[in-house]
Amino acid sequence: MASLNRIEADYWFETPGDPRRTAEVMAGEQSSGTFVAVPGETPELMARAAARVERLDLLDHAQAPSLPSVDPAAPPAPGGYRRARLTLSWPLETTGPSLPNLLATVAGNLFELRQVSGLRLTDIRLPAAFADAYAGPKFGVAGTRALAGVPDGPLIGTIVKPSVGFGPEETAALVATLAGAGIDFIKDDELQSDGPLCPFEARVDAVMRAIEAEADRRGRKAMFAFNITGDLDQMRRRHDHVLKRGGTCVMASLNSVGLAGMIELGRFTQLPIHAHRNGWGYLSRSPQLGFDYRAWHKIWRLAGADHMHVNGIANKFSEPDASVIASAQACREPLFESRADAIMPVFSSGQTARQAPATFAALGSTDLIYAAGGGILAHPDGPAGGVTALREAWEAAMAQVPLQSYAQTHPMLARALERFG
Amino acid sequence: MASLNRIEADYWFETPGDPRRTAEVMAGEQSSGTFVAVPGETPELMARAAARVERLDLLDHAQAPSLPSVDPAAPPAPGGYRRARLTLSWPLETTGPSLPNLLATVAGNLFELRQVSGLRLTDIRLPAAFADAYAGPKFGVAGTRALAGVPDGPLIGTIVKPSVGFGPEETAALVATLAGAGIDFIKDDELQSDGPLCPFEARVDAVMRAIEAEADRRGRKAMFAFNITGDLDQMRRRHDHVLKRGGTCVMASLNSVGLAGMIELGRFTQLPIHAHRNGWGYLSRSPQLGFDYRAWHKIWRLAGADHMHVNGIANKFSEPDASVIASAQACREPLFESRADAIMPVFSSGQTARQAPATFAALGSTDLIYAAGGGILAHPDGPAGGVTALREAWEAAMAQVPLQSYAQTHPMLARALERFG
Repeated sequence: MASLNRIEADYWFETPGDPRRTAEVMAGEQSSGTFVAVPGETPELMARAAARVERLDLLDHAQAPSLPSVDPAAPPAPGGYRRARLTLSWPLETTGPSLPNLLATVAGNLFELRQVSGLRLTDIRLPAAFADAYAGPKFGVAGTRALAGVPDGPLIGTIVKPSVGFGPEETAALVATLAGAGIDFIKDDELQSDGPLCPFEARVDAVMRAIEAEADRRGRKAMFAFNITGDLDQMRRRHDHVLKRGGTCVMASLNSVGLAGMIELGRFTQLPIHAHRNGWGYLSRSPQLGFDYRAWHKIWRLAGADHMHVNGIANKFSEPDASVIASAQACREPLFESRADAIMPVFSSGQTARQAPATFAALGSTDLIYAAGGGILAHPDGPAGGVTALREAWEAAMAQVPLQSYAQTHPMLARALERFG
Repeated sequence: MASLNRIEADYWFETPGDPRRTAEVMAGEQSSGTFVAVPGETPELMARAAARVERLDLLDHAQAPSLPSVDPAAPPAPGGYRRARLTLSWPLETTGPSLPNLLATVAGNLFELRQVSGLRLTDIRLPAAFADAYAGPKFGVAGTRALAGVPDGPLIGTIVKPSVGFGPEETAALVATLAGAGIDFIKDDELQSDGPLCPFEARVDAVMRAIEAEADRRGRKAMFAFNITGDLDQMRRRHDHVLKRGGTCVMASLNSVGLAGMIELGRFTQLPIHAHRNGWGYLSRSPQLGFDYRAWHKIWRLAGADHMHVNGIANKFSEPDASVIASAQACREPLFESRADAIMPVFSSGQTARQAPATFAALGSTDLIYAAGGGILAHPDGPAGGVTALREAWEAAMAQVPLQSYAQTHPMLARALERFG
């Protein structure tokens, strides 16, 4: 993490051609190149503007192309489709420290190149000028813990379920139950924002009445992430309304809001941003295309995300556990030498008491939000049983006591293990 | 295109399991479902909020899964991985007419479902309430033609090349040459916005001096799409500066700015929005994942894009011609019964005089921007020769005269065919 003068990006790629030539084509496409030499393309201009191949490590061959490539003139080189790891770099002077321009540079046209039959952006490293231009998370781990009143251990969280269909009062009734059960964190579903069936302001008003009432009793206010995802003027109004009603968190869907919108939200927010990654599948599900989370999450974190979804161990989706843990670890590493900017990874998707030990063992930290929907709401003893069971599961995990042993003296955990076995 | 009460989305999917069950899982994930039944999930709530399977057409089987799916409990059903076309629908009442919430609904978590080994969003159809909420393109085809002073025929365009490296005066010198050659349209490269090597305002000032000088001579002002991609405050300032200097177009990279930013730009812009799709490859390159352009482009068009990139026939990238033409045709179809909202498809990427006949034959229209970078700048007689050759190629195409015949009496076209054969 030495201080950089240039923007660096790492890629995995596969090519039917010569990997060295392919690396040069990628560098050219993303800087000063076109398909023929043009007037004005002087050596001096190339020297100040061109992208540079910093490193190329050849890997294995594939016998068939991972993605369609329609270059009829390019049957694969002998041996098959060569795979490689590549680092490209760009002078900061061509883009300046701009996140939207960075994205067009490191993840622009090059995914369409016929010279690759697979391409994945695996990491990015940025000059310190980006840290000056973007404040990053305003709250991060410490700010979130302070607002939620949870100085240590995981934030035990849940999602309002059913995802959609409840009106404001039905939502608030559920929240009252969950807050009464001692939950730390609750989030709107990403499908719920400001539909006529559950208008945003009415939902905030009803939910915050329930949360404030319970906070008066407990002396600690459950954090509710209200989904403000929408047009920018809507997001401003919704943010201000949450703040006015005493709410402590806003949620936004990264792929729905987009980068300029998230940067703007990151600047005006006075509350932690709970960043939902729905749509991540279309950016990552093909192992030979798109983004590694490590590269992708850095953009949003620099834009201001305080919490970022990472899926969960043994999730209901298709992501392997190792990938989930790598994502969560990335959230904890600093982006720049100059500041602490760790954020809260959010574990969710089919999470119950069962996954707590493996999650803690892999991550070695409790700086995280552990969100269970059905895993809390469908506990045989109701939501209070669900919250208690999750806390007990994490106590067991941190003490390195097997869940089944701990369950012998903790009936709510025992009932959870029975129900979600 | 009958008026709809519900949001509809079409998908292509592949599944190791029962396709009917998979369709129901998709509908559940994107509406009121979680992985277990929860309290409050009443039949009444489901009826008002649930997504509905409108149509399911079974297709062929694949012998291997297109994308990794890690459900160990689900080996493929007999016959292999079943493929199907699916239409889901949602009540407008859960999201309201909101583009960001729409995106999270039709293209959210479902791409991560383990029940699919391939998933692509192929089309969307929206209730008229979306037309009331979003004005769509402010300029479209007619407004662009009026500003560019090109009442019929294609807008012959080019891209400033080298992509990056020129300073403001070098850029302006090239623009003076191109404008003097009678070009209709010029765009910044998507890598160029406001870097220290070519600051935005200085570039606009220098370029507009060149364009205005030529406009005084010709009585017609070449349209220059200045790349304003950046943070939202930067985009506002840059837009205003272009307007103040007499510019007639702004350009933005859709995937860098994102949806909330583009909606905001669409509302405040007083100039046509030239929408660059760089990054489209990571959303579409795997045929079994992501988006068809037809579905994806509707979102941005409704947000206000006036021109949208569609690649080009025999392009330098990996997209087949049929896909390029389908994209361009989609840009010409109205989104709603209530208004005309056709936009300009932008053909680019390795385009020269050669592709004009096939482009015109496939599209049957000249409501388009035909942009050649090297195809103009590297013409043996220089940019003026390149512009003339492209106009001649389109004249030939529209008259259905073979290029080689037309070239016999049109030397600039003849030289282009020699150079770019």
